[in-house]
Amino acid sequence: MAEIGIGIVGGGYMGKSHAAAFAAVGTLFETALKPRLVAICGSSPESGARHAAAFGVRRAAADWQALVADPEVEAVVIAAPQGVHREIAEAALALGKPVLCEKPMGTSADDARAMVTAAERAGVANMVAYNYIRTPASQFARRLIAGGAIGRVHHARIEHTEDFHLTSILPPWRSRGAANGCLGDLAPHPINAALALMGPIAELSAVIETVFPERGGVRVENDDQVQLTLRFESGALGTLFASRVASGRKMGYAYEITGETGMIRFDQEDQNALWLYQEDGDAGLAGFRKILTGPAHPDYEAFCMGPGHGTGFHDQIVIEAKDFLTAIEAGQPVWPTFADGLEVHRVIAAARAAAASRGWARPDAF
Amino acid sequence: MAEIGIGIVGGGYMGKSHAAAFAAVGTLFETALKPRLVAICGSSPESGARHAAAFGVRRAAADWQALVADPEVEAVVIAAPQGVHREIAEAALALGKPVLCEKPMGTSADDARAMVTAAERAGVANMVAYNYIRTPASQFARRLIAGGAIGRVHHARIEHTEDFHLTSILPPWRSRGAANGCLGDLAPHPINAALALMGPIAELSAVIETVFPERGGVRVENDDQVQLTLRFESGALGTLFASRVASGRKMGYAYEITGETGMIRFDQEDQNALWLYQEDGDAGLAGFRKILTGPAHPDYEAFCMGPGHGTGFHDQIVIEAKDFLTAIEAGQPVWPTFADGLEVHRVIAAARAAAASRGWARPDAF
Amino acid sequence: MAEIGIGIVGGGYMGKSHAAAFAAVGTLFETALKPRLVAICGSSPESGARHAAAFGVRRAAADWQALVADPEVEAVVIAAPQGVHREIAEAALALGKPVLCEKPMGTSADDARAMVTAAERAGVANMVAYNYIRTPASQFARRLIAGGAIGRVHHARIEHTEDFHLTSILPPWRSRGAANGCLGDLAPHPINAALALMGPIAELSAVIETVFPERGGVRVENDDQVQLTLRFESGALGTLFASRVASGRKMGYAYEITGETGMIRFDQEDQNALWLYQEDGDAGLAGFRKILTGPAHPDYEAFCMGPGHGTGFHDQIVIEAKDFLTAIEAGQPVWPTFADGLEVHRVIAAARAAAASRGWARPDAF
Amino acid sequence: MAEIGIGIVGGGYMGKSHAAAFAAVGTLFETALKPRLVAICGSSPESGARHAAAFGVRRAAADWQALVADPEVEAVVIAAPQGVHREIAEAALALGKPVLCEKPMGTSADDARAMVTAAERAGVANMVAYNYIRTPASQFARRLIAGGAIGRVHHARIEHTEDFHLTSILPPWRSRGAANGCLGDLAPHPINAALALMGPIAELSAVIETVFPERGGVRVENDDQVQLTLRFESGALGTLFASRVASGRKMGYAYEITGETGMIRFDQEDQNALWLYQEDGDAGLAGFRKILTGPAHPDYEAFCMGPGHGTGFHDQIVIEAKDFLTAIEAGQPVWPTFADGLEVHRVIAAARAAAASRGWARPDAF
Repeated sequence: MAEIGIGIVGGGYMGKSHAAAFAAVGTLFETALKPRLVAICGSSPESGARHAAAFGVRRAAADWQALVADPEVEAVVIAAPQGVHREIAEAALALGKPVLCEKPMGTSADDARAMVTAAERAGVANMVAYNYIRTPASQFARRLIAGGAIGRVHHARIEHTEDFHLTSILPPWRSRGAANGCLGDLAPHPINAALALMGPIAELSAVIETVFPERGGVRVENDDQVQLTLRFESGALGTLFASRVASGRKMGYAYEITGETGMIRFDQEDQNALWLYQEDGDAGLAGFRKILTGPAHPDYEAFCMGPGHGTGFHDQIVIEAKDFLTAIEAGQPVWPTFADGLEVHRVIAAARAAAASRGWARPDAF
Repeated sequence: MAEIGIGIVGGGYMGKSHAAAFAAVGTLFETALKPRLVAICGSSPESGARHAAAFGVRRAAADWQALVADPEVEAVVIAAPQGVHREIAEAALALGKPVLCEKPMGTSADDARAMVTAAERAGVANMVAYNYIRTPASQFARRLIAGGAIGRVHHARIEHTEDFHLTSILPPWRSRGAANGCLGDLAPHPINAALALMGPIAELSAVIETVFPERGGVRVENDDQVQLTLRFESGALGTLFASRVASGRKMGYAYEITGETGMIRFDQEDQNALWLYQEDGDAGLAGFRKILTGPAHPDYEAFCMGPGHGTGFHDQIVIEAKDFLTAIEAGQPVWPTFADGLEVHRVIAAARAAAASRGWARPDAF
Repeated sequence: MAEIGIGIVGGGYMGKSHAAAFAAVGTLFETALKPRLVAICGSSPESGARHAAAFGVRRAAADWQALVADPEVEAVVIAAPQGVHREIAEAALALGKPVLCEKPMGTSADDARAMVTAAERAGVANMVAYNYIRTPASQFARRLIAGGAIGRVHHARIEHTEDFHLTSILPPWRSRGAANGCLGDLAPHPINAALALMGPIAELSAVIETVFPERGGVRVENDDQVQLTLRFESGALGTLFASRVASGRKMGYAYEITGETGMIRFDQEDQNALWLYQEDGDAGLAGFRKILTGPAHPDYEAFCMGPGHGTGFHDQIVIEAKDFLTAIEAGQPVWPTFADGLEVHRVIAAARAAAASRGWARPDAF
Repeated sequence: MAEIGIGIVGGGYMGKSHAAAFAAVGTLFETALKPRLVAICGSSPESGARHAAAFGVRRAAADWQALVADPEVEAVVIAAPQGVHREIAEAALALGKPVLCEKPMGTSADDARAMVTAAERAGVANMVAYNYIRTPASQFARRLIAGGAIGRVHHARIEHTEDFHLTSILPPWRSRGAANGCLGDLAPHPINAALALMGPIAELSAVIETVFPERGGVRVENDDQVQLTLRFESGALGTLFASRVASGRKMGYAYEITGETGMIRFDQEDQNALWLYQEDGDAGLAGFRKILTGPAHPDYEAFCMGPGHGTGFHDQIVIEAKDFLTAIEAGQPVWPTFADGLEVHRVIAAARAAAASRGWARPDAF
C-alpha cells in the first residue's frame, strides 16, 4: 500500500474540509496512493495545535515554513489566506513537492504568473482548488458540451450569486482589499466555469460595483457585485454575474449554455440535477430532461451505487483530493493547473480595465 | 347596458386573440361597458370575410380605412403588421376613436413619437398591448416591488428567450428588416418589463447579433439575439437578454429582481407562480416562497375563484381588453400608454447606437 | 353561420364561467356552430336578472322551468346546485335538448342512473363537466398512456388536495350533506381522472373521515378527506386521496402513473407541464422530460400558437364548450357522457360501502 | 485524543461506505472520540484482504467471528447480508461491544426481538442504520413537526420508490426470499420514516404484490411493491407506498405531512430542500417556502459553512457514524435503537397479515 504524506496549511473552513477529504478519499476512491495526513498548521503554533487535535491530524507544525520543510510532508495543500498563497507555493515547489492551492491563486495575475513559473520549474503536480466545477453534474455538462450534445454553442449565462455578505457577520477584512471583494474572491468560481464550459475569453466589458457602502457598521471598500459581457474565442456570446449580496440566493452557481440544437441548465442549489434539452423534431415530446446524477456520471459511483442518491459540497473536495493524488502519481499537473488558474486572474485584470474604461478589454493583454 | 362597438384590424394570430378576448371580457370582468364586435378586416377583402366568418364577427370591412371610418366602430384594435400601425392609429385617433395597438408601436422611435402626438391631440384612451406583463403574477410583482417588499432594488436580470426561429418554418419576412428581428420584435417585451419593474433606464451598452446567417434555406438579415447591460435611473444595475434561437426555451419571459432585503423570481413557463424571498433573520426557515396566483392577486378572480387554478396566455389578452374598456370609460390613456410605448423604442434606438459604438448610450438621447 | 341558442341554469361561479366560455368558444375554436347566449336564470327572478346584466346575456329567465321551456334555448347548461341537476336534466332531455351538466351528476348513483336513462331516451348530446381532465396536458397524458408510451401500467397515484375548507369562509351548507362533502363533491374529479387514465375500477377499499368536527363555529357533518386503495380491471394497483383540508395545496389535482417502461407525473398547480420518463437504456441521459404544452398537444393551439405560453382554468371550460358544441352537431354524447358520469357515482357508492365494512367493495355492485 | 477501534463486517457497498464514514467523521464533526479503523472482513478471507487493501483499513479479519473477537475491535459495524445480522450482533453484544447494524435488523421480527434482548442485556450503544432519515432536511422536518410548526398532523403520505429492479442486472438472490423483497428490504426505510415523523402505527391494511413474475430471465419470487393504509396512534391517517419497479424514480424517498395549519413536503431526489407551508392568513403571500438546508439545520455545518451548498448520500453515513460515536461515549442506545428497529419489523409483520386477510392488522400484535 503506497502512501504519501500530506501537509495542510490552514485550519479554517477549507483547511478542515481538505483534512476530512484526504482522510476519506483513499477509501471512497480506492486510490492506489493512500494519503496520510502528516501535519497541519494554523496562523499560530497554538491554532495549529488546536486544529491537529480537533481534526485528528498527527501533528501540528509551528508555521507553514516548518510544515513545508517537514520531510514527511510530501505534498502540500494550501488553504491559507490568499495573500500568502504565492510564497507558500513557491517554497513547496522549490522543494519539489506537489501543491494543491485553494482558489484564487494569490491576489493578482502577477502572483499567479509567478506560481506558474515555479510549478513549471518544479515539474510536479499542481492544481487550483475550484471545487464547484467538480460536481458530477458539472463534469458531465462539460463532457456533453465538448461532445456536441447541444451543437455549436452560441450563448452562455453564468452566475454565482450568494447572500453571505448580507446575512452573516463577516470579519472586517472581507470588506477591504480588492482580492477579498466579489470580483477577487467569488467571481473566480464562475469565471473558471466559463473557461471550463466555453473555452477562452477573447474580450469582455464589465461593471463592478459596491452596493452597500457600509454594512453592519463596517465600511465596505471593495465590490459587492460584478457583471461581465463576454465574447469567447469560439465566437459565442456570454454574460456573467457574480454577487455576494444577492438576497435569497445561497449557492447560486448556475449556468445556461445554449447551442444550435439544445441547451444545458444547471443551478448548484440543486446540484444533483442537470437539465438537458436536445432538439429532435418531435414537438409533442420536446422538453428539458431532468437528469439526476448517478453512477453513469463522472466520479459519482465512489460515493454511492444508487442514482439520484446525491453528492454534496464535501464530496467535491474529496473528488479534488482524488484528482490531486492521481496527478501526483502521474507526476503531472491536473486541470485546473496553475497555468489554468492564471487565466482566471487575467480575466479579472481585464474586467478591472474594462470597467475603468467603460469599454472592452482583452484578457490576453494581462 | 352600455355598449361600445369594437373594430379589429388584422385577423391573424393576434387579431383572432383580441376578437376572442372582447367576446368574453364583458362576462368575465362584468364590465359596465360591454363590447360589441362590429367589424374585422384582413389584408384583403377576402381574408377579412374569412376572418369574420371564422370568428363570428358581425361583418368584415374591405380594408382598414373602411373599418376605421365605420361609424359603428367606436374603438379600434390594431393587430396588423408593425409597418402600418402608425397610419392606422393616426387615422383612428384623428376621428377621436380610442386605440389599442399591438406591440411594438410601428417600426421606429419616430413612428412611436408620431403616434404619441396623435394620441395626445385626440385626448382619448390609448394603450400598447404588452400582454405578458399583465399576468396576475407580474402585476403582483410590480406591486410588491413598488411597495418595498424586497427593499431598495439594486439588480435586475430580465430575459425573454424562445426558440421559435429554430423550430418553426417562419415566413421569410421574419428574417428581414430590423423591426422584425429579435431587438425590434421580441426584445420590446422584456424592455417593457424592465421599465415596468425597475423604472427608467439611464444608459446601456449592447451586443446585437445574428447567430444563424441562414435558416431553412432563407438568408437571415436581422438579429437573432441581443444582450444589454442596463443602468437604471434608480441606480440599479441590470442585464437583459432576448433571443429567438434559444433552443429549448418556449416562453422564457423571466426575471430576477434583487433588493436589499429580498428577491423576486419569475419565469413565464410557469406563469402562475411567483417566487418571493424576504430576509427576516430566521436562517432556519429562510427560503423562497412559491406563491401560486389566486383571487388575492390582480385580475385573477375574474377567471376563477380557486387559487392555484391558473390563468394562461389568452387570459392576458382578456385583461388587456378589460383595461382598455376601463380606459375608454375614463377617457384616459392606460399603462402602457403610447407615451410609455415610446420609451421602449428609445431604449431600442439607444441599444443600436451602443452596439455600434461598443460603448454606452442613453435612451433619452433618442 | 349556423347558430345555436344556449341557456344556462345558474349564475354563480360556474354559471358565469360557462357563460364566458360560450361567448368566446366560437372565435377561439372557430366552431362551425356558433353559440348564442340566449338566457340565464338564477335562484330567483331577481338574481337571474342580475346575472343577465352582469354577464351580458340577452335575457333572464324567471326560473329553470321557464329557461328549459324557452324555444330559443336549444341546449341547456346546468350549473345549479347538485340537488336539482336531475330534474332539470330530465326536463331538458324530455324536450330533446342537449345537456351539459356540471359535475357531479345529482347527489347519488340513483340520480345519475335516472339521468342516463333520460339521455338515452332522448338520444341527444349529453356530457358531464369534468373540466380538469381537459387541460392539454391531461388530454395528452391519456393519449400517451393509451398509446403505450410507458408500457403496461401497473400503478397509479391520483390525488386532489385543496385547502379551501380551511382558508375560506364557506356557506354552512358546504359542511352538511354527504353530497357536499369531500367524497361527494371534490373526489369525483380524481375518480373521473382515475377512470380516464386507468380504465374501470374492479374493487376498492376506503377510509372516509372528518378531520375538523367544527370549523369557523359551524359543525362539520360531512367528510373532509378520503383515501382509497384501488384495484383496476387491468390489474393495476392504485391509491387515491382527496382532501379539502390539505393546508397549503391550492390545486392539487395530481397523478403519477407508472408503467413497465416509464412514468407520467402531473400536478395541476403547474398545469402546463407534463413530466414523462421513458426508459431507453441510456443511464447517463435518463431523466424525466418536462414537456410544456403547446400547439402539438390537444386543444392548445386554439388559445395560442406559441408553445409554453400556457392555458389556464377558464380555457378548460372553453374546451368543454367546444366539445359540447361538436357533440350537438354530431347528435351524440361526448366523453364523459352521462353514462360515464354514472361510473363515478358507482365508485363513490362502493367507497361508502367499503369504508363501512372496513373491507373491499366492487363499484359494479352499485 | 481518545480513540476507539472500529471493526466492520462486510466490505460490499455499505461496508465501504461505513469505512469511509469512520475515516472522515472525526475530522468533520471534530468528535472527542476518534475512531480508528482496525479491521474489516468479507465473505471469505480473500475478499476481506481485498477490502482492507482497497479501503486502506489496517487489517483484514478472516471472518466475522475473528473480527468480533479481536480485542482491538471495540465497536462493531454490521454491513453483512440480513441473514447473519442477528448472530453477529448477539456475539458482539455478548462481549459488551457497541453495535451499529445495517437496516433491516435480520429477516424477521423474531430476529429483531432477539437482538433487542441482547442489546438490553449488554447495556451498550446500539443503533440501526436508517441513513435516509438523517439528512439535515429530514431531521429538521422531524423537529418542525414535533415543535408544532404545522399544527396537529392529520395526514401523511410516505413513499420510497426506485427503479433499480428494472434497470440493473441484480444478483438472483434479490428476487428470492421475503426479506429481500420490497416489503422486507426497501419498505423498512419509509416505515421508519413514518414512525419517525408520525409516531406509532395503531393499525394498517396492505396490498403486497409482484409486478414482474420474471425479470431478465430470473423468476421473481418476492414482492415488487407494497401499498399500506395507516392509522397512527395519534389518530392521523396515512398512506405508504414502496416500489422497486417505479420506472423513472431513482431516489423517491418522499413524504407529504399535513397538519391543521400547514404542510411539509420532501423528496430525497432533491435532498437539500424542505418545503414548508404555514398558514398565516395572508392569501397574497401564501405559498410553500423552499428551505435550502444550511448551518441552521441539524448536522449540516460539519460539512460546510455555506447554506445551500448541499450534503449528499455519503454525508448521511457520516452523520450516522457521529451519532454512533456519541452513543458509545454516553454508553446509551441512540435512535433508531434496536428497540426502535423492532417496531419496523412489527409493522412489516402486520402488513403481511393484513394483506393475507384483506383486512386490517395491528403491529402491536406481532
